Amino acid sequence: MISNAEIKWVRSLHEKKFREREGAFIVEGEKLVAEALDSGFEVLHCWRRDEIGDNAMSRISCLSSPSPALAVLRQKKETPLPAPGGLCLALDGIRDPGNFGTLLRIADWFGIPTVFASPDCAELYNPKVVQATMGAVFRKEVHYTPLPALCAQWREAGLPVLGTFLDGENIYRADLPCDALVVAGSEGSGISAAVSAQVSGRLTIPAFGGSGAESLNVAAATAVVLSEFRRR
Amino acid sequence: MISNAEIKWVRSLHEKKFREREGAFIVEGEKLVAEALDSGFEVLHCWRRDEIGDNAMSRISCLSSPSPALAVLRQKKETPLPAPGGLCLALDGIRDPGNFGTLLRIADWFGIPTVFASPDCAELYNPKVVQATMGAVFRKEVHYTPLPALCAQWREAGLPVLGTFLDGENIYRADLPCDALVVAGSEGSGISAAVSAQVSGRLTIPAFGGSGAESLNVAAATAVVLSEFRRR
Repeated sequence: MISNAEIKWVRSLHEKKFREREGAFIVEGEKLVAEALDSGFEVLHCWRRDEIGDNAMSRISCLSSPSPALAVLRQKKETPLPAPGGLCLALDGIRDPGNFGTLLRIADWFGIPTVFASPDCAELYNPKVVQATMGAVFRKEVHYTPLPALCAQWREAGLPVLGTFLDGENIYRADLPCDALVVAGSEGSGISAAVSAQVSGRLTIPAFGGSGAESLNVAAATAVVLSEFRRR
Repeated sequence: MISNAEIKWVRSLHEKKFREREGAFIVEGEKLVAEALDSGFEVLHCWRRDEIGDNAMSRISCLSSPSPALAVLRQKKETPLPAPGGLCLALDGIRDPGNFGTLLRIADWFGIPTVFASPDCAELYNPKVVQATMGAVFRKEVHYTPLPALCAQWREAGLPVLGTFLDGENIYRADLPCDALVVAGSEGSGISAAVSAQVSGRLTIPAFGGSGAESLNVAAATAVVLSEFRRR
């Protein structure tokens, strides 16, 4: 069973300001909820459609077709920024929740444990982000932090800060380091000027066959870039 | 100016059955409409928001925030299937319009002129597909055709049919041919059984660092696969 007060509470978590106030977030779907229960995140509540009914589930769900299970989890506390090192991803102005979540999923596939996000990125606990991560939300360490200062810190530590641009070095021929901060820019406007100024290396994924294409989408481009780092 | 009859006609093109009956489709957005005018497609109509007003534009638009320009183009006639050869992409059961359009955009970047689609894929002229292609819709030759027969035809011509699976050969170490039909399966269910039975080579993009990730999304995986073919 679910009370009206609980319904109201879960519905409030559809909004960022209540998620922040409550320090909680929503996870939906049979598979994702099963992962959530196994994730180490504290589960505050879990409801199943066959227990509370279609009507109640559709009231608390964020999805257009309410899924069989919905859990409310406690948000992880922010931890201090890790020292520069390893292969890390920095997301610059990725406002679209679907793109942001997909990028975390890609980082997950390529074994990148830490992702930095500029403060104007989508919110990690936005339900659309959570769904798009396909569970990566439970495994990634995500830090929201201004990227120009972060990039400067990596460079001071003697580590490369690499971005993808239309006019960079051919990534297939570049000598890629093991440790680097890889920056991905937004779909519309690319890597911001303030972050570009801090980039130590510019890479390009070449277009083939005079295709006429002007850009790859950010998720595809980032997958290709991370694949190039990992394949060597 | 735009008449009520025209508004009604454009609105009818939001639906597949009317797009098919009229042999027409909608393109929106300053950039995409400019590309459309330059594409060789026959332009049946073009309206600008500053000429017909916000109200009329929002009635004919498929977007939640109507864009400054909307054009109606004539659909291309279906052409006969090309003979097997070159590097081609086959999309198997990609129902999601955003994914389908993004895959055409990726094919465009990597210089793949011809894309085959199983009949249950999203419709090429669906407005969401058109938007997601970022103009690739004007440049790709897309053929809807049953894939098992197509794959058989490629194999009979002595050409490889390659799919990405979770249990295939490590793509980074595989000897990739110049000519091949690369099959991409749907997000939820992968490559269908009937198509799998026709695949001559199984490839895998390895996950790194015991990531726990179960899959890459189809667009990211296809970008990595096509990048591997093109980088060599």
